[in-house]
Amino acid sequence: MLSEATEARVRASFARQKLMATFGAEIAALSSGHCMLTSPILALAEQQHGVGHAGLTFALGDTAAGYAALTLMADEAEVMTAEMKINLLAPSHGTRLFATGKVVKAGKRLMVVTAEVAVETEGTRRLVAILQGTMVPVLPRLTR
Amino acid sequence: MLSEATEARVRASFARQKLMATFGAEIAALSSGHCMLTSPILALAEQQHGVGHAGLTFALGDTAAGYAALTLMADEAEVMTAEMKINLLAPSHGTRLFATGKVVKAGKRLMVVTAEVAVETEGTRRLVAILQGTMVPVLPRLTR
Amino acid sequence: MLSEATEARVRASFARQKLMATFGAEIAALSSGHCMLTSPILALAEQQHGVGHAGLTFALGDTAAGYAALTLMADEAEVMTAEMKINLLAPSHGTRLFATGKVVKAGKRLMVVTAEVAVETEGTRRLVAILQGTMVPVLPRLTR
Amino acid sequence: MLSEATEARVRASFARQKLMATFGAEIAALSSGHCMLTSPILALAEQQHGVGHAGLTFALGDTAAGYAALTLMADEAEVMTAEMKINLLAPSHGTRLFATGKVVKAGKRLMVVTAEVAVETEGTRRLVAILQGTMVPVLPRLTR
Repeated sequence: MLSEATEARVRASFARQKLMATFGAEIAALSSGHCMLTSPILALAEQQHGVGHAGLTFALGDTAAGYAALTLMADEAEVMTAEMKINLLAPSHGTRLFATGKVVKAGKRLMVVTAEVAVETEGTRRLVAILQGTMVPVLPRLTR
Repeated sequence: MLSEATEARVRASFARQKLMATFGAEIAALSSGHCMLTSPILALAEQQHGVGHAGLTFALGDTAAGYAALTLMADEAEVMTAEMKINLLAPSHGTRLFATGKVVKAGKRLMVVTAEVAVETEGTRRLVAILQGTMVPVLPRLTR
Repeated sequence: MLSEATEARVRASFARQKLMATFGAEIAALSSGHCMLTSPILALAEQQHGVGHAGLTFALGDTAAGYAALTLMADEAEVMTAEMKINLLAPSHGTRLFATGKVVKAGKRLMVVTAEVAVETEGTRRLVAILQGTMVPVLPRLTR
Repeated sequence: MLSEATEARVRASFARQKLMATFGAEIAALSSGHCMLTSPILALAEQQHGVGHAGLTFALGDTAAGYAALTLMADEAEVMTAEMKINLLAPSHGTRLFATGKVVKAGKRLMVVTAEVAVETEGTRRLVAILQGTMVPVLPRLTR
């Protein structure tokens, strides 16, 4: 289970991410090693055909995976993406995205994570992307 | 060399990308198989430590690679990312990003691309990310 | 379900892979969109510390994913890897590997696949790698 | 420049890789942050169409990148692949492969690397794959 302190720490970090606020993203669910984010597909995040940009899909999937990892890191740590790969399965044609990140292997130096991103349209969800990558814990002083 | 028609087509497509407008991104250079984008690091695109979000870095690198590919595609084609991988080398601590995409292999069905993203701060540029991925040509009717 | 013709086609293709024979690999299970391979960790496939080489882990995972994709392709098609990414979770310290590939999205031009590789030691299995990539169908004449 | 001690250490590690011996691979060039391997395409490493298996291409590219990284690591360290991505550009149709690895960013905990693999046929070389990934230094006791 997620301690109150860890949950508060993750939510405070997420709240400081201005890009997530720009996209209108919120934490939909959070537990030990898991994080689900959701975001509308705002016009400001569209690509050239009026659907969600791959950059939006990536940002949500990456961030969900990152906070999934942060739930398993030491109290003083922050999380940064070392690397991330995305396969896009279909255009993000719909009204809202759901990104679910999880930790596959929680090492001390590296955490291997995956994420799935689904688009919702008229009440049904369809998978639009899968991600696989590596998160690293960093001390706050190292991230500036 | 890039024909006027192709250059106009690429610039028109880029101009329709609302996410690029949100980030303040522009095309800095365009030639056959190459594209450089530049963008300020606006507050709206920051992560939790006040530097550019990995989602911004990814979106610029991916888009630069995509338009590099589009310069080599048939007239009626649009470009979509099939998959993309990013390795982040350093935090995007600075005022402006430069993303340079190029085509490594221009196949008929798949184009293999790479991109580099650098951050500029006080007049010097530092590499912050490298990307490697696959672009596919699609007919406009297929992208909606 | 997998038709007899498709199963025969996949098994015949696998049987022609000399690298798989070199590693002692076999098909352990095969169904529509899924393929499990297994292989001993022979001395000839070790890395510098006497455990299975990442190249062995990759080859099994990639091949399992490829044949998972081939079960869903048209009769005349062969399968080739367009791109593949592997995250290694732990050294392949054990006696036997099991690689399980599956199709996440079966498009006409591209198939997105994932695979997991586990090592068996003293009767227990442990995940050592996850893979995510893209397979493409090719006509036999194009692959030579 | 590469010290004699470092060169000896890298060559000794490579010599212990039985998979490289199986493939007939050798170190063709080695300098600080760079490593080139070469290997014939033996029948034992072929895929179903009689050309080099993607597993061979990957193993060479990954190993070249790994030893490029090891040249920049501390004396007691060994190198392991954390993750690696390969894009295959063309079938390995020819007689010999050349894999060139280099270090893009040498961090203390992570090294970001790339590699290119070319096939030689009738005296000309053609790029068949590009790789991008992450190497980590490990103490010998941790790798068993």
